[in-house]
Amino acid sequence: MAKVAIVMGSTSDWPTMQQAAKMLKAFGVEFEARVVSAHRTPNLLVEFAESAADEGFSCIIAGAGGAAHLPGMIAAHTHLPVFGCPVKSKALNGLDSLLSIVQMPKGVAVGTLAIGEAGAANAGLLAAQVVALQDDSVKEAIIAFRQNQTDTVMQNANLELDE
Amino acid sequence: MAKVAIVMGSTSDWPTMQQAAKMLKAFGVEFEARVVSAHRTPNLLVEFAESAADEGFSCIIAGAGGAAHLPGMIAAHTHLPVFGCPVKSKALNGLDSLLSIVQMPKGVAVGTLAIGEAGAANAGLLAAQVVALQDDSVKEAIIAFRQNQTDTVMQNANLELDE
Amino acid sequence: MAKVAIVMGSTSDWPTMQQAAKMLKAFGVEFEARVVSAHRTPNLLVEFAESAADEGFSCIIAGAGGAAHLPGMIAAHTHLPVFGCPVKSKALNGLDSLLSIVQMPKGVAVGTLAIGEAGAANAGLLAAQVVALQDDSVKEAIIAFRQNQTDTVMQNANLELDE
Amino acid sequence: MAKVAIVMGSTSDWPTMQQAAKMLKAFGVEFEARVVSAHRTPNLLVEFAESAADEGFSCIIAGAGGAAHLPGMIAAHTHLPVFGCPVKSKALNGLDSLLSIVQMPKGVAVGTLAIGEAGAANAGLLAAQVVALQDDSVKEAIIAFRQNQTDTVMQNANLELDE
Amino acid sequence: MAKVAIVMGSTSDWPTMQQAAKMLKAFGVEFEARVVSAHRTPNLLVEFAESAADEGFSCIIAGAGGAAHLPGMIAAHTHLPVFGCPVKSKALNGLDSLLSIVQMPKGVAVGTLAIGEAGAANAGLLAAQVVALQDDSVKEAIIAFRQNQTDTVMQNANLELDE
Amino acid sequence: MAKVAIVMGSTSDWPTMQQAAKMLKAFGVEFEARVVSAHRTPNLLVEFAESAADEGFSCIIAGAGGAAHLPGMIAAHTHLPVFGCPVKSKALNGLDSLLSIVQMPKGVAVGTLAIGEAGAANAGLLAAQVVALQDDSVKEAIIAFRQNQTDTVMQNANLELDE
Amino acid sequence: MAKVAIVMGSTSDWPTMQQAAKMLKAFGVEFEARVVSAHRTPNLLVEFAESAADEGFSCIIAGAGGAAHLPGMIAAHTHLPVFGCPVKSKALNGLDSLLSIVQMPKGVAVGTLAIGEAGAANAGLLAAQVVALQDDSVKEAIIAFRQNQTDTVMQNANLELDE
Amino acid sequence: MAKVAIVMGSTSDWPTMQQAAKMLKAFGVEFEARVVSAHRTPNLLVEFAESAADEGFSCIIAGAGGAAHLPGMIAAHTHLPVFGCPVKSKALNGLDSLLSIVQMPKGVAVGTLAIGEAGAANAGLLAAQVVALQDDSVKEAIIAFRQNQTDTVMQNANLELDE
Repeated sequence: MAKVAIVMGSTSDWPTMQQAAKMLKAFGVEFEARVVSAHRTPNLLVEFAESAADEGFSCIIAGAGGAAHLPGMIAAHTHLPVFGCPVKSKALNGLDSLLSIVQMPKGVAVGTLAIGEAGAANAGLLAAQVVALQDDSVKEAIIAFRQNQTDTVMQNANLELDE
Repeated sequence: MAKVAIVMGSTSDWPTMQQAAKMLKAFGVEFEARVVSAHRTPNLLVEFAESAADEGFSCIIAGAGGAAHLPGMIAAHTHLPVFGCPVKSKALNGLDSLLSIVQMPKGVAVGTLAIGEAGAANAGLLAAQVVALQDDSVKEAIIAFRQNQTDTVMQNANLELDE
Repeated sequence: MAKVAIVMGSTSDWPTMQQAAKMLKAFGVEFEARVVSAHRTPNLLVEFAESAADEGFSCIIAGAGGAAHLPGMIAAHTHLPVFGCPVKSKALNGLDSLLSIVQMPKGVAVGTLAIGEAGAANAGLLAAQVVALQDDSVKEAIIAFRQNQTDTVMQNANLELDE
Repeated sequence: MAKVAIVMGSTSDWPTMQQAAKMLKAFGVEFEARVVSAHRTPNLLVEFAESAADEGFSCIIAGAGGAAHLPGMIAAHTHLPVFGCPVKSKALNGLDSLLSIVQMPKGVAVGTLAIGEAGAANAGLLAAQVVALQDDSVKEAIIAFRQNQTDTVMQNANLELDE
Repeated sequence: MAKVAIVMGSTSDWPTMQQAAKMLKAFGVEFEARVVSAHRTPNLLVEFAESAADEGFSCIIAGAGGAAHLPGMIAAHTHLPVFGCPVKSKALNGLDSLLSIVQMPKGVAVGTLAIGEAGAANAGLLAAQVVALQDDSVKEAIIAFRQNQTDTVMQNANLELDE
Repeated sequence: MAKVAIVMGSTSDWPTMQQAAKMLKAFGVEFEARVVSAHRTPNLLVEFAESAADEGFSCIIAGAGGAAHLPGMIAAHTHLPVFGCPVKSKALNGLDSLLSIVQMPKGVAVGTLAIGEAGAANAGLLAAQVVALQDDSVKEAIIAFRQNQTDTVMQNANLELDE
Repeated sequence: MAKVAIVMGSTSDWPTMQQAAKMLKAFGVEFEARVVSAHRTPNLLVEFAESAADEGFSCIIAGAGGAAHLPGMIAAHTHLPVFGCPVKSKALNGLDSLLSIVQMPKGVAVGTLAIGEAGAANAGLLAAQVVALQDDSVKEAIIAFRQNQTDTVMQNANLELDE
Repeated sequence: MAKVAIVMGSTSDWPTMQQAAKMLKAFGVEFEARVVSAHRTPNLLVEFAESAADEGFSCIIAGAGGAAHLPGMIAAHTHLPVFGCPVKSKALNGLDSLLSIVQMPKGVAVGTLAIGEAGAANAGLLAAQVVALQDDSVKEAIIAFRQNQTDTVMQNANLELDE
């Protein structure tokens, strides 16, 4: 069965990136999460990215903050689809992370999600949507999740003015 | 065989978005390009997005500029993976397009590429990378493209000082 | 009598959007507040926007955050005036919300207010100003509110240096 | 019949602001265009804004660039709805104009449109949408315009790859 | 003797603007502080600005936040030098205030200081520097303040590493 | 009689900075323009700024682009009022120049004008407004200029739609 | 032995700048930390920068916030390499500091590090890397630090989902 | 003798990056320029960076645009000092390049210069300043260049008003 890799530059990115993991888990998609730092473990990055296809991964979700080079560098070493998650940074709130990830030159692509937890969750969802192209049970789980999400919005709308 | 849809808000986006088409063509991936405007043809958007899976598309590439709602609204109406291309806008150079596309809330995902032509080309590449998960000839074409790209860089480096 | 709709993408927008409601209430303008999510309930959005005129609404106030597509998409489905409220977002403080709402292409208009609570209150005021074109009691209430606002500024100015 | 005022800080804003005029003209809405500068003719501004309702205007469209104070200052002197158009500025491409117009404090509202010509056209459309609340011929003209706009998108889509 | 006016859009600006007052007080420059809102008391603004020279003020310090029109509008109604203080705003941290104040068109000038308390204090200093052109005791006080400031930096440098 | 210094970091700033000179000339205020570079002639900067008061200058106008340190460094070496002009820069259009000039820390003030030519002209106007506090002929010239400016706006408004 | 100077505009910058000191200490590189303010002690700045080479320093690390002129002005007075640290500022989170430091004109260079503590630490590292060109023990210490950093990442990756 | 490497992501960066080369040449510092792309030749990057010290380079100057990963990734693979040049990008004028290069996390440093040609020239200057720590002839050349630069400013100031 298809398997998704979740990598991040630092354990401090895990509170954000586990949103991707939770989403994948909810859809029944297998995943592995690892710390791989573009700057501190650059050789591990190469090794990981070059073997990811052979390890059986179908997609790679990569999250990093600041001068966030991890998603783009992984994409440079694999033909698998890579989805990038800009982690919120201290000074610039993730605008640096976003631009560092999304503004890739022609020829190496990173599908980038929103800054922070919402984006990480959506990376999990998007990876599941890719997996669903080959797996009907994941497709059904996504359709059910989306329907449930719609139903929740339509039931919960209790809008009363504060005093 | 897998087929990719390329949609855009206006024919004026085509010079940008045809970069996606050219990339898909280079990899031998079938595609269809259409104008679907979130704001001017909103019902067509719903109709297109809701039937895209049944029409046999595997991925949707959507490009728009300014308050760019097309990619996110298509994603809201389909379980297929959607890749968004921020088209360069007149006043803000595509920063508005980028933020309008990438900052999606949790639950509906758009994998966003760079502003302008490089991003559109990479949307084609990323869609091909997704198709390649099920199609070895596309996978081989991508690997060859990437190798060729590497070779070109390594041969072309003629760096002489201007007088 | 004229009625104003207040819609928002999520109940989490209500603390902001109820400022619009309070303003309308203060002017004696009838309103209804609903949660309608562009991304999570896209069909409800179409249904709501297409029937809003027939339901007797004169204006629609729509608030959303991040990649805020709600105001523009509602405007795409109705000929009623739409006023947009950029809700403050987590990472980018509502700059993304603002650009996603205000930078609409020619042909579909959203009158956009300031980011956050002040903007939501002003959406209520602006909608009341539109209603006042046909309703003298609302017009008088607005004129009185503005006069009162002026008086308050002129009476309250106690400016003493802290020690 | 309802009449709309179009004011701008300088004749140099007219190439932008005439888009509003053209839109109103297309819908058969009467309008008057004037130069009123917040900074160079501040007394004229007060006089204009305070008499606009009595002159028979229903809405005011105001455009300005840079530290764009015209729309907000007009709104401070009238209870009529004011729509603001950020004119593209030399150094900052209208981002300064946009923030100067849209970020109004609670209590005085300006419904703001996009930077530049698209926004000016939409100010005309939005003012017409307000007028249409009391004028069925304008309402019909808007509905026809929107339908025509939809039809144009759906017919014009000739998307062929450049060589 | 020369007198400086300090005006601000709201009492909520006083914690910032009193820094200007404190600076003037420290230099022995007479000042008066008032709340004058561009948007909520526009007629008071005109009255204040037009009579400021006759009231004996030499400079006007004006502070406001968000779409900050106060400094520029005061400058439009007087030939006295006007110094503008961008007050930190909720959503955009005063970037909107800064651009709304500083980006004045040719012909009406506002000398703008930094966002927040440092800028307000410096507005007081700058006004005192202007007053000092005609008042030797203020000039001496400024020179002494600057010398003292220099001395303080040179004495206080206790730089030890935290454990 | 009072005299104003205009300094700039490079002769390439002169097309911008001469707007200040022209404004002063129009008001009959004596001025001297010099190139003084914070980075390339730092000792000249110190010498110029420390002797400016003794040379008989009343105000200093300083223009620079990019990491624009000239206005602030001159202010650090004199008790005279300093007005700063952010020159438009190549990559960031003067946003870097603006922030480098305006965001001065408490204790050393620079009254900052708009980016580019409008700001330079206004620096000349503001310096003249300061000079006018002691010179009635300059005051009259400013009042006449402002009245003329008002008259020009009110006469020139030829607003006709393009075909 | 080579010695590095760490200077900063204010003692309030020390919590940030001591990260540079700690890094140098860890590599066994001698350093001296001083407060030198571009704006409040401009003559001390000149004196310090002009004598730094003779005092035996090989590199200078300079940190400042807001309109941060210290690094560039020091660079203007010495031929030693200068590394600049943008300290996080109150209103703009250090974006102003960054642009004020990095956007130097051709002819005077500042090697700029990231905003805040990470950048200050890296200024220490970069200075040590320069020292290491002439000092094998520092070179070995850097190589060991980097290896240790790699090892730490590879051992610490405990990634478990929160409940 | 010390040697400096100049690397860049693409031959299209050479017009910018040759400014570094020209500066080094002017100081008599030996250099080699190569195209090494982080994304298109990632293995060449590793190979180059890991062998740079053994090849006899003392510093590495790296330039790239957009999501500019080259400088940071080279720094991750070497203990030599790395100086980064943000090349001006199409949509965002190099702001993306700047943030991608400068916002490095603690532990891997890149000394970043200004966006575009001025920054590239300064990278050459800064590298020469590092080389000069061990090479008196380069030191003398830098001191002469700086003196010459000062003299040029002081002689060239021909400031006459345009008609």
